[in-house]
Amino acid sequence: MTNLFSDLSTEVPEELIEVLAEGQHVRIERIVSTGQASPADFWYDQVQAEFVVVLKGEAKLLLEGEDAPIHMRPGDHVTIPAHRRHRVEWTTPDEPTVWLVVFFGE
Amino acid sequence: MTNLFSDLSTEVPEELIEVLAEGQHVRIERIVSTGQASPADFWYDQVQAEFVVVLKGEAKLLLEGEDAPIHMRPGDHVTIPAHRRHRVEWTTPDEPTVWLVVFFGE
Repeated sequence: MTNLFSDLSTEVPEELIEVLAEGQHVRIERIVSTGQASPADFWYDQVQAEFVVVLKGEAKLLLEGEDAPIHMRPGDHVTIPAHRRHRVEWTTPDEPTVWLVVFFGE
Repeated sequence: MTNLFSDLSTEVPEELIEVLAEGQHVRIERIVSTGQASPADFWYDQVQAEFVVVLKGEAKLLLEGEDAPIHMRPGDHVTIPAHRRHRVEWTTPDEPTVWLVVFFGE
């Protein structure tokens, strides 16, 4: 057994991505952000759908075509269809933001 | 956007199961337990693997053949292979226990 809230170092420059479980059509990751955001004009465009929940910290997720980002706080979850372009506008610099992400074929 | 910690009624006799997202080979559920446990001698035996995390509350999960259950607290997660028999020995009666569960083909 491991814990989603363990090993939350804040002294790393990059986001930490850890694969927690994986099947042929699914990948479950923990991502820890410490103030990072997507680069300017960068959009994720993924072949799989993505279920994403923030479990600690705060983030702003922008879906292409929306006027404003979704402000996500602990427990908030969104399912992003495959090829729905999106970007992380902001994660709080005040504490680590812990995301649980499930990528899956539709 | 919806939140994993909303609508946690404690006045229901049954576990609440809500499908949050679904694909051909994956199903993501929120389960809210309020003191329930698996019936005596009942074992789950599932065709899919299961990634399970406790996000609130406490639970004891027993895998067949183990001497003692795994005591799961918020953030603790376990991946149960397909057909690995298991049961929920206990969930705390003191507050709702919120599980996030991903069933997936291996």
